[in-house]
Formats: sequence, C-alpha cells, structure tokens
Amino acid sequence: MKQNLSIVKIGGNIIEDKAELSKFLHSFSELEGLKILVHGGGKLATQLATKLGIASKMVGGRRITDSNTLEVITMVYAGLTNKNIVAELQAANCNAIGLSGADGDAIQAHKRPVTTIDYGFAGDIDGINSQMISNLLIAELSPVFCAMTHDGNGQLLNTNADTIASELAIGMSELYDTTLYYCFEKNGVLMNIADDNSVVKHIDSKKYKELLDAGIIADGMLPKLKNCFHALNKNVSKVCVGHPSMLYSENELFTTITL
Amino acid sequence: MKQNLSIVKIGGNIIEDKAELSKFLHSFSELEGLKILVHGGGKLATQLATKLGIASKMVGGRRITDSNTLEVITMVYAGLTNKNIVAELQAANCNAIGLSGADGDAIQAHKRPVTTIDYGFAGDIDGINSQMISNLLIAELSPVFCAMTHDGNGQLLNTNADTIASELAIGMSELYDTTLYYCFEKNGVLMNIADDNSVVKHIDSKKYKELLDAGIIADGMLPKLKNCFHALNKNVSKVCVGHPSMLYSENELFTTITL
Repeated sequence: MKQNLSIVKIGGNIIEDKAELSKFLHSFSELEGLKILVHGGGKLATQLATKLGIASKMVGGRRITDSNTLEVITMVYAGLTNKNIVAELQAANCNAIGLSGADGDAIQAHKRPVTTIDYGFAGDIDGINSQMISNLLIAELSPVFCAMTHDGNGQLLNTNADTIASELAIGMSELYDTTLYYCFEKNGVLMNIADDNSVVKHIDSKKYKELLDAGIIADGMLPKLKNCFHALNKNVSKVCVGHPSMLYSENELFTTITL
Repeated sequence: MKQNLSIVKIGGNIIEDKAELSKFLHSFSELEGLKILVHGGGKLATQLATKLGIASKMVGGRRITDSNTLEVITMVYAGLTNKNIVAELQAANCNAIGLSGADGDAIQAHKRPVTTIDYGFAGDIDGINSQMISNLLIAELSPVFCAMTHDGNGQLLNTNADTIASELAIGMSELYDTTLYYCFEKNGVLMNIADDNSVVKHIDSKKYKELLDAGIIADGMLPKLKNCFHALNKNVSKVCVGHPSMLYSENELFTTITL
C-alpha cells in the first residue's frame, strides 16, 4: 500500500497577509504525514517591478514574462517569499526545504511556444522528478515549491502555481497516495457566490457536469476545477478546495472532489 | 575510510562576469566525486539596493544588514544568483540543489550581538546539519549554498560566504575527507602582490608563521588565511587557494595549505 502524501497550494492573497500566512504555516507544520507546499507569488513581484520601473504586462489574466519580469519573479518568488516561508516553517518544527523547479531538476518544462501571443519566459511542464522529491521526503524534509520551473538548458521559467501543484500531485501519484489541497479565500465551490456558507461539500464527475451546465462553476473557478479533474483523471486520489482552515479545523466547510 | 568531498567557494567578482561564471560552472560540473558550491553575493545586491533607494552601510569592510538590506540580499543571493547558478549547473549535467542555511535547517546561526557596532541581521554560525547535507549527497545532489543562514526562530541572517564555506567544510569533516577550495581573482598566496606568478605553492603552519612575520600575508589575505587554518585545525584535510582554473587545469599555479 502506498504512503499518503499531501500537496497543499496557497495563493498570493495569503502570502501578502503576514498574520494569515503565519496562521497557515503553523497549521501546515502540524499536518501529519508526508507533505509538500506550493506557493503562488502575490502582488510583491508586481510591486517590486513597479518600483524598478518595469511595466507588468498582462494578457487574458496571464502575466507576460519578459526577461526583466523573470528577474523580478526569481528574486521575489524563489528568494524573498520562498526563504521566509522556509525560515518560518523551520521555526514551527517543520523541516522545510525551499525549491524551484530547477533545484534537483524537480520540474522540467519548456518555454511556451509563441502563437498569437508571446508569453515570454512562461514554462509549460513536461515532467516531475518524482524520485528526487521522494528522496527528500524519505530524508524527512518537506519541499516548499515556488512557481518556477526550468528548461534543462539553463533557462528559468515562470509557471502558474496551481498548475505546478496539480502536476506535482500527478507525478507523485506514481509513488504515493496523493491528496491535493487548493487553499484560497473562499470556503470552497459555492452554489451562490455571495454566500460563503453555500459550499458544495462533494463534487464528483456527475455533479461537476451538472454544476457546469447550470453555470455555477464559472470565471476563475473554471480553470481551477479543470485542473482538479485533470489531476483526478491522472491518479490523484482526492482534491480539496477551500479556505486554509480546512487543514486544521474538522468542522470547517470545504469542497471535496473525487472522480 | 571516509569518502572525499570537495567544497568550493566562489566570490562575487566571478558571479558578476557571465562568461567567467559559465566557464567556472562548467568546470565545477566536471569535478569528480561529491561536491558542494558556496557562492558570494557580489555587487548585484548593492546595485539593486541603490535602485530601490536603500543606502548600503559598511563598517570596517562589513555590510550592516538592516531589514531593508536583508530583503534585498534574500532576493539577490537566494533568488536571482542562486537559482541561475542552479539552472546553469543543471544544463551542464550537475544535479545542483540551491540552498540557504534555512533550507533543511542546513546552517544554524544567531544574530551577532550588538557591541560597539550593531551589524543588524548578520549571522554567526552555531552549527552545520551535516546529516541532512549528507542525505542530499547520497541522493546524488550537489548543494549550492548562498550566503544566508537562519536563527531557527524564523529569522533569516546574512553570513559571510568565506565563513559559510569553512564552517561547512568543518561540519562535513565528521563524515567526509574534506578539501576546501577558495577561488578568487589571484593565482594564490603571492610573495609579491604585483606578480601573479609569484605563488607560494605550499603553506604549512611553519611557513604560515614565516609569511605572517615577513608581512607577506596582509590585508584581505589575513582573514582568508585565518579561515583556512581554523578549518585545518578542525579536521579539514586540505585547503586550496587560487584562481578557479585550479579546478580544471593540472598545471595551474595555486596555493595548497595543510597543517
């Protein structure tokens, strides 16, 4: 029987709130069993870019990563954010080790091909080095990934943190019974976007289709749920979507997703 | 018998020169056996601080690390510099993994006590997690350290890269037969500072005293050599000081130091 592995993704809005981040990291450190953290970037990179006079270019909600922006992202995601999270987890007795996809060749990617849009140094994932990551877990380390990958030819690339989390979950499913947790500001998938208590507690493939047809899953939830079912279809056991408190409070509302 | 381990320190001036850095990283990747790289910071951090309007304060050649400077250092050393080195080593088939002292609790330190000077967030090293680092080596990874440590209470600290290299060499000597390489712009310890070919090829304790008495070892070489003998006195087998080319060219001039 495979060992359990939890992969937890936190978004930028938690990272920007020092008190919320501390509370979250404390609960992550108390999570039992093998675990991996994936963190998004948040507005810090945009703020630093602005200070340095580098314009942030967005197309369809996606950042265009030119070489200056890539430098800023490398500094903020892999440096400032990642190392402060690691230091805080260490203080909470979680033996964290911060990684980009280049470290230990953890996440291989290629630069997104230019079509009508040139996304610049954006990476689409090719593979996960599950054996290396497993060696870290065996050494009782908890990997903490920032949203960066590499192409194996010396080029760092920016990759969406949700995608990193789901691809890590898929890759690690070869070796572990993997649960993926997407933490965000809502309590889960909501029947009524205005009511944070209207959580859909369980979604399976049938329910997913119903919610899509009824237009309940829309906007930002569409790619999130697509990511979830992509992961489930590739051997991830379970995906949970909700507020970070789902990690530590047994009575909290959140959405559990299975095939 | 203990396995051999090479610990190589490169300074800021190599990091700032893209062509020299590439050449060095290529030779590091070809170095046989177990190996660890330690890199200094260079002027990139000072340049970024200047762009952001943060004044760099130096006292007696040492940087005063206030909280803004610590943020800049974390971004540049642990982010930009470390991750680009790792990506380039991966491209050269060296399975590098970039670390600060917080990652895996690799290097424990405490904030330097305030005496007549307050160095700010400067870290003096308390210990090396040799077992964790050894686990990485066993997993066929080559750790790449930036000049950062942590205090175990969530605080990142800035620590001199020469000191990190010698303390790592000392700590790893428990488990390995360790050689420490200090790479810098000169060919080694020089009899005549103006003649880069006047290398003292071998220094032992007796020769060291002679060179000190004669004033040959002075200025910037004083703390470097002190670091070397500190390491040798604590079970490091050998220290080599010279140009990075000492790693790959058999006929190169460099200084070998033993007790």
